[in-house]
Amino acid sequence: MPKRAVTLNMADLAERAGVSIATVSRALSGAPGVSEETRRRIKELAADLSYAVSPDAARLARGATGRVAVVTPDVAHWFYAAMLDGIVTGLHGTDLDVLLYEVKEERERRRFFAELPARRQVDALVLVALPISDDERRRLDLMGVTVVMAGGTLGDHPHVRIDDVAAGRQATAQLIRAGHERIAMINSTGTWSLEYAAPGARLRGFTGALEDAGIEVRPDLVVHRRWGSHGGVEGMNELLSLPEPPTAVVAFSDEVAFGALRTLRRAGVPVPYAISVVGIDDHHLADMFDLTTVHQPVTRQGLVAGQLVDRILHQGDLTSPHVTLPTHVVARGTTGPPPEPSVRRPGR
Amino acid sequence: MPKRAVTLNMADLAERAGVSIATVSRALSGAPGVSEETRRRIKELAADLSYAVSPDAARLARGATGRVAVVTPDVAHWFYAAMLDGIVTGLHGTDLDVLLYEVKEERERRRFFAELPARRQVDALVLVALPISDDERRRLDLMGVTVVMAGGTLGDHPHVRIDDVAAGRQATAQLIRAGHERIAMINSTGTWSLEYAAPGARLRGFTGALEDAGIEVRPDLVVHRRWGSHGGVEGMNELLSLPEPPTAVVAFSDEVAFGALRTLRRAGVPVPYAISVVGIDDHHLADMFDLTTVHQPVTRQGLVAGQLVDRILHQGDLTSPHVTLPTHVVARGTTGPPPEPSVRRPGR
Repeated sequence: MPKRAVTLNMADLAERAGVSIATVSRALSGAPGVSEETRRRIKELAADLSYAVSPDAARLARGATGRVAVVTPDVAHWFYAAMLDGIVTGLHGTDLDVLLYEVKEERERRRFFAELPARRQVDALVLVALPISDDERRRLDLMGVTVVMAGGTLGDHPHVRIDDVAAGRQATAQLIRAGHERIAMINSTGTWSLEYAAPGARLRGFTGALEDAGIEVRPDLVVHRRWGSHGGVEGMNELLSLPEPPTAVVAFSDEVAFGALRTLRRAGVPVPYAISVVGIDDHHLADMFDLTTVHQPVTRQGLVAGQLVDRILHQGDLTSPHVTLPTHVVARGTTGPPPEPSVRRPGR
Repeated sequence: MPKRAVTLNMADLAERAGVSIATVSRALSGAPGVSEETRRRIKELAADLSYAVSPDAARLARGATGRVAVVTPDVAHWFYAAMLDGIVTGLHGTDLDVLLYEVKEERERRRFFAELPARRQVDALVLVALPISDDERRRLDLMGVTVVMAGGTLGDHPHVRIDDVAAGRQATAQLIRAGHERIAMINSTGTWSLEYAAPGARLRGFTGALEDAGIEVRPDLVVHRRWGSHGGVEGMNELLSLPEPPTAVVAFSDEVAFGALRTLRRAGVPVPYAISVVGIDDHHLADMFDLTTVHQPVTRQGLVAGQLVDRILHQGDLTSPHVTLPTHVVARGTTGPPPEPSVRRPGR
């Protein structure tokens, strides 16, 4: 079986560094079992070599399949679909085709990784915001193909993501600036036993922004519901049933915010006059809900991930493989000052 | 180069029918140049043979690639993403992998079809609601791979779709039943020179329902805008600027309806008390807008398309390749009786 993709570069690296290919693989992927010095030396060598490799020679030599596997939890969901659109666009004009794998359930994901070595007819794998187990990660590392994470991180593997802590902080700060103090969060929980990183990170951003403003974090104002708009419907219902409901809500995502807005509309609660709502995402329909939100460049994350794959496979370029794209607030109609003016503390 | 996919079945058929493989291909794909009698005879033979072909023997013999190409205009759009999700799900558990091709612009589509023969390393192609030219269609027919259209029709090729005329009729009838007579339609136009079939078909359903109810079709109440929610925003603005705006609106799609609802909300027009709105799709967020709509099973169309591919490739089963799935009205909060009671004609 011919060696694939960056395996050639790894063999080159191993020869020049005087170590085994497995050591190079471990060093570059961040797997344990390599001393920090060796890891540093190999990475420097990789960075140096990347400029010396001729793209054409590398392509001819590497016995490439011309295919990239994209692995995503749910194609039908806006976030993953936009990511996929970006990845495909990022690979457009290259000679790489996209093989699509959807792993909706935990057992599908386990099966995918179990079958992967037998199917390793790809030059690279792009994982779309997919939490995987340590065992699956080791399996990927051993395969020696290029692995890129889009919408998250995976050890030292190349990735493109946003800073979810910053996004949670921006959403919350927008409400604090408007004068709110009784601010709730409807956070999301996944259905997998492996945790997605975003809910924890966005919650840390939420509590961090409150603490910075000297506002007490009240545990009863943080509710957790399933992903998606129906989670928002339920979470908002729970918050409305509190003896003293919040004057503002940070939703884990725009879809959660859409659900919260439906609950408020049905309950006859005027937005933003009684309650403000802010989302995170800038979903392509956020504008239709007049939703104030934190924009994250989803398609662009996919695009950069696709371009990373192209750069690594075709130029052997392993430099700057970790990209964090900025987020920013888009103010629309669902946020405003709280209904009764809060007493503002001096200095704010 | 080994023959692919159903080519073996075609060779079998050709031998038994005493004709060339090209004739079989033309007969099954609906291409011209075959007499009706020959076409009928080959189709009957195909139907008979499908029960005789052993799946395992066929798979071993056909030199299959194990890959299906899915070609779609825009992965990021809900409709195509849901279709893709269905197709992938329909192929789940088979030995077929999905190669994804996105052709957003006319020239991308032309390039895709121009390059296709060189890349013909697939057993089947699924086109997702993609209008193609006669020349591209002939090219597909000549390739001899299985072609399935999801969300439309393509000559005699296998397809899965809804009846768009019926969908337009159901949406309009829902408003007529509620007592409306001044009913508008915001229809959509694509950006390609090749026409999508849905806008014309849904408009025929709209006018057909009005004519059946004895309601005059007023050309000033039919506006055309670009696909998507912003088209709905603009279309509703135009309708509101009429000397006598409609009391009810049929939107080409739910996303168009979302845009229309935003315009009405911003204009302070209460829905459904002043104007009713009905969509077509049952978009996964329709519930969040309380939108009354005509449900079409999008994921299911993709699923059936995937299953058709599996059945044709693995069982050589060419029977019932044309599937039309039913649509139905989902009544939610955006439709009600007109603001002033209309004079009801006897018998309705």
